[in-house]
Amino acid sequence: MILTVTLNTALDITYRVRELRPHGSHRVSEVTERPGGKGLNVARVLAALGHEVTVTGFTGGPTGRELQARLTGTSGVVDALLPVSGTTRRTIAVVDELTGDTTQLNEPGPTVTPAEWSAFQKTYESLLFGVSAVALCGSLPPGLPVGAYAGLIRTARTAGVPVLLDTSGEPLRRGVAARPDLVKPNTGELAELTGSHDPLRGARDTRRRGAHAVVASLGAQGLLATTPDGTWHATPPTHIPGNPTGAGDSAVAGLLSGLVEHLPWPDRLARAVALSAATVLAPVAGEFDRSAYEELLGRVTVTGEAGAA
Amino acid sequence: MILTVTLNTALDITYRVRELRPHGSHRVSEVTERPGGKGLNVARVLAALGHEVTVTGFTGGPTGRELQARLTGTSGVVDALLPVSGTTRRTIAVVDELTGDTTQLNEPGPTVTPAEWSAFQKTYESLLFGVSAVALCGSLPPGLPVGAYAGLIRTARTAGVPVLLDTSGEPLRRGVAARPDLVKPNTGELAELTGSHDPLRGARDTRRRGAHAVVASLGAQGLLATTPDGTWHATPPTHIPGNPTGAGDSAVAGLLSGLVEHLPWPDRLARAVALSAATVLAPVAGEFDRSAYEELLGRVTVTGEAGAA
Repeated sequence: MILTVTLNTALDITYRVRELRPHGSHRVSEVTERPGGKGLNVARVLAALGHEVTVTGFTGGPTGRELQARLTGTSGVVDALLPVSGTTRRTIAVVDELTGDTTQLNEPGPTVTPAEWSAFQKTYESLLFGVSAVALCGSLPPGLPVGAYAGLIRTARTAGVPVLLDTSGEPLRRGVAARPDLVKPNTGELAELTGSHDPLRGARDTRRRGAHAVVASLGAQGLLATTPDGTWHATPPTHIPGNPTGAGDSAVAGLLSGLVEHLPWPDRLARAVALSAATVLAPVAGEFDRSAYEELLGRVTVTGEAGAA
Repeated sequence: MILTVTLNTALDITYRVRELRPHGSHRVSEVTERPGGKGLNVARVLAALGHEVTVTGFTGGPTGRELQARLTGTSGVVDALLPVSGTTRRTIAVVDELTGDTTQLNEPGPTVTPAEWSAFQKTYESLLFGVSAVALCGSLPPGLPVGAYAGLIRTARTAGVPVLLDTSGEPLRRGVAARPDLVKPNTGELAELTGSHDPLRGARDTRRRGAHAVVASLGAQGLLATTPDGTWHATPPTHIPGNPTGAGDSAVAGLLSGLVEHLPWPDRLARAVALSAATVLAPVAGEFDRSAYEELLGRVTVTGEAGAA
């Protein structure tokens, strides 16, 4: 069993409109909805790969109920979300049919009270028993301390559970200092954290700041891993056209599944890159194309070497 | 008791963002929600004026449940909405804090099946017993015949209940031919119906097409009424700055309350214009400012004359 934590879950809504014009009125031609927030996306991909996953975090209000109703239909995913008095946020992606571009509107999410945060920490600690890994994913909702992830990382380390962190800004900085097993920043997050725009230098600096291993997402250029076992660069076989929404979450699922299956780093990275590319290719944002994944898996290039990074 | 019909109810959601940029990502700073669709807006204003109102139409899915939960908190409004298998639409108004302008995204609404439409017509007929007036408001959801309002108007006339129609396009054209007691087009709707851009000429043509009385909304220039009792023009005392959302629905509530209270036309029009202006002035879109309403009521100018229009 793998555990994913999504403190700021969301109902992801996609609208298709002909052309978004500010201050105009638009008929939405198509509405799709699915449970969202990075940890839920990661869980869905892990379940599709055959892993059992428990999801936790917060849910509240009518949007939270709708999210949980949709989660119930996702096989392989166990719902251990905690109720809060606030309302789960919606995110709205407005897809412009003329250009294919997307405009994003994100609600802030519920304000979590200190009592709700305490209750969560207890639940989290009990959920850690018997899981093979935990992923802490996404932004913090209003009301949580900026060191929230740092605390959850220390709890996981005490419980002996490998912990992956995928967040940004100050919660990432504090989290890295709590010595997680793996962080997966993109180049922007890495630059914000370390001040370096060179991903290799930034990743090495992130390890010095406390992260055991760093897998930097380079977008279309694949993944760069700096780990105690070596440094590798994994790249997709070709430029992949499509929608990058959810590609990072698929990479996290690839890395996490590779970790619990004790795959060597090059295999973990190949899986993460192939899943990520197969997500960009999928017609529905955030889903992955399974046959593309299987086809791409053997064609990812991994360069680098074993040895202390 | 007054009855309002909203076949395409909506949960009206308002987002505040700093500045809407197409293809950008936006943090929503404030989310407000309320039951919407023109007939529900009319009902809320009627209730605030002290009238008892029953609302009917369709509701479905999680958005419909949320709408009904919020309606339960509105005193003076009785919920007689009918369930449908589809999901009630959301409308999203994105308010740009920099300019104050609004960008509107409207979901299409549930597709109503022939069986659901039949069930509605029976419920509607039974709800007409004992009501003093009925208002048919807004667009038709997918699945309904374009002559839907025409049928509901004939049923009301058979039941001897005065009927007001506030819609646009072909449903308005068909509705007018079914001889409603009152229609309230704006200048655009009037021009589309009659081909004339002169409101007085358009209103008179609309009466010839079947409407007993026509109150044309001229926006900031007030209301123009052509009725069997005479022709009047009612104008607000001053230019009213603010958000015109819901001003037309407030005007309908003013006209309808004046009708059931048997007020003379000039008093009905003064009330409708004052309510409309007090809605534009209110800080929350679609609400009206009661003290502004009371103050404006005595200052509306009504010109015109009694006698056959």
